Formats: sequence, C-alpha cells, structure tokens
Amino acid sequence: MTVPAHTALAPAPDLHSALAAVRARGLRLSGARRAVVAALYGAGRPLSADEVARAACCDPASAYRNLEALERVGLVRHMHVGHSAALYAPAGARTAIVACERCGARTILAPRAAAQVRAAVRLASGFIPHLDHFPLTGLCPGCANR
Amino acid sequence: MTVPAHTALAPAPDLHSALAAVRARGLRLSGARRAVVAALYGAGRPLSADEVARAACCDPASAYRNLEALERVGLVRHMHVGHSAALYAPAGARTAIVACERCGARTILAPRAAAQVRAAVRLASGFIPHLDHFPLTGLCPGCANR
Repeated sequence: MTVPAHTALAPAPDLHSALAAVRARGLRLSGARRAVVAALYGAGRPLSADEVARAACCDPASAYRNLEALERVGLVRHMHVGHSAALYAPAGARTAIVACERCGARTILAPRAAAQVRAAVRLASGFIPHLDHFPLTGLCPGCANR
Repeated sequence: MTVPAHTALAPAPDLHSALAAVRARGLRLSGARRAVVAALYGAGRPLSADEVARAACCDPASAYRNLEALERVGLVRHMHVGHSAALYAPAGARTAIVACERCGARTILAPRAAAQVRAAVRLASGFIPHLDHFPLTGLCPGCANR
C-alpha cells in the first residue's frame, strides 16, 4: 500500500537540499536513506522500489520503508503507471506522463497540453484531474501503427 | 491478472444479443455465465468481480473465471479505477470515467470533452490515450473545495 497521494508535497530542488530537508523534517539520515534519496535524484526518471533498492545497494524492504517515510514528509511522491508496480520520484518533478499499454514506452506531456487536458476535464465535469498519480495510458505511435 | 485491454472488442447492444453472442463465440451458456452476463447488463455501471458474484449468486472465483472468458471473446472489458479492484462492464459501454482519489466518486466525461483530451494528448505526444482502461483520477468538486 502506498502513502495517500494527497499528502502535502514539500519538494526539494536538488539532492543537497533534499538531504538537508530529511533532517529538517525530523527524519534520521541513515546511510540507506541517504542512498535512496541519491538514487531518486540521480535517476532522472521515476523508479520502482526494486530499482531504488538496486541503485541504493539495499534490500527492497528497506528501500520501500525509506520511500514511504520520505513520502510521508512530502519529499517523494509515487505514481501508478498502467499495470506496473508503483514508481517513485522526487516530489518536485510533477510531470504528466503518458504510457503505452502495449510496450511500456513512456513520454512526458508538454505543460501546455497537460493544461489543456486539465481544463477540458474540469469544464466538462467539475473534477480536477491529477495526471501524475495515475498517468494517462494508451498506445505509443509505434504500437498504434502496428 | 486481467485479460490484456487491447483484446478486440465485439460488443453486444443488450442482454439478449449478449447471451446469443456467448454461444455464437463458442462458449457454453451455463447458468453461472448467464447470471454474470445479466448482472453486468443490469447494473448500469461497472462492477467489481465481487459485486458480480453477489449479483449473480455465484462464488467470486466463478465470477472471475466467467468474466475472463467473456473478456477473451470481446464481450466484456475491464478498467482500473484508482487503487480499486478491476471493474467490469459490457464491451459496448466505452465511456471515459473520471474518479475522485479521495472519496471514490465517479463521473462520466462528456464525449466532446473526452475527444478534446484525446486530441490534446495526441497532438503533443503522438500517443493515443485510452481513457477507459486506466481512467483519469483527481478530485471531485466536493473534495476539491474541502
């Protein structure tokens, strides 16, 4: 079970600020926690808990516990892309991802297009869509043409 | 595990046609299968496998096996709404749902708004979004104002 996605985000812009923020928010900065934060900031893309564990050289249960603790204080957020396991990223990187249901390819939606999507949904339904917790899925250009 | 969402759909417009189509597609029309099809067509909204089992008076494993068989021949489709269990509906009802991540409320997006969303995503990314397999999630008007 992931941390509720409506936990207030408190992003840190870079690894240095994130490590400082871990302590400022009352969490102990253990070696494993430092490695988990470094893995997320170094990846440049959202990672699964297993990928974080490999990058941080710790066991998956420890990676998962650290991700949960970091998410509870708003430094990390998770998303569910299609059928895959939850993915984690620094809280600052609020991007609208579109994923291919067939081959797993992912792309980031341009901010203007994401704003158009949000506006169309809000106007029609009153709902405010979050495109970063359960991202849009569909077919990538390659799979659509196959 | 659900049946791949890109299985070709072969919708039946009503319960009578659906029951005929079950046999036409080579499936046996057992009492349980008939009851599962009737539950889906009678509900007017997507149902979880547990809800289908209750409505069809059969056990959840039997409901699930029947839903899978019906989905494989294109008569039923499934969707994943937020963190909830998969929901099932007659294949004909391809609607774009938006769900509230906080209270679970769901609404159906007007076809024009759904078309605008698809066009904005396609223009920006080349991806063709499917709004009915992993529906949009966000906050309903009530939760957004709280």
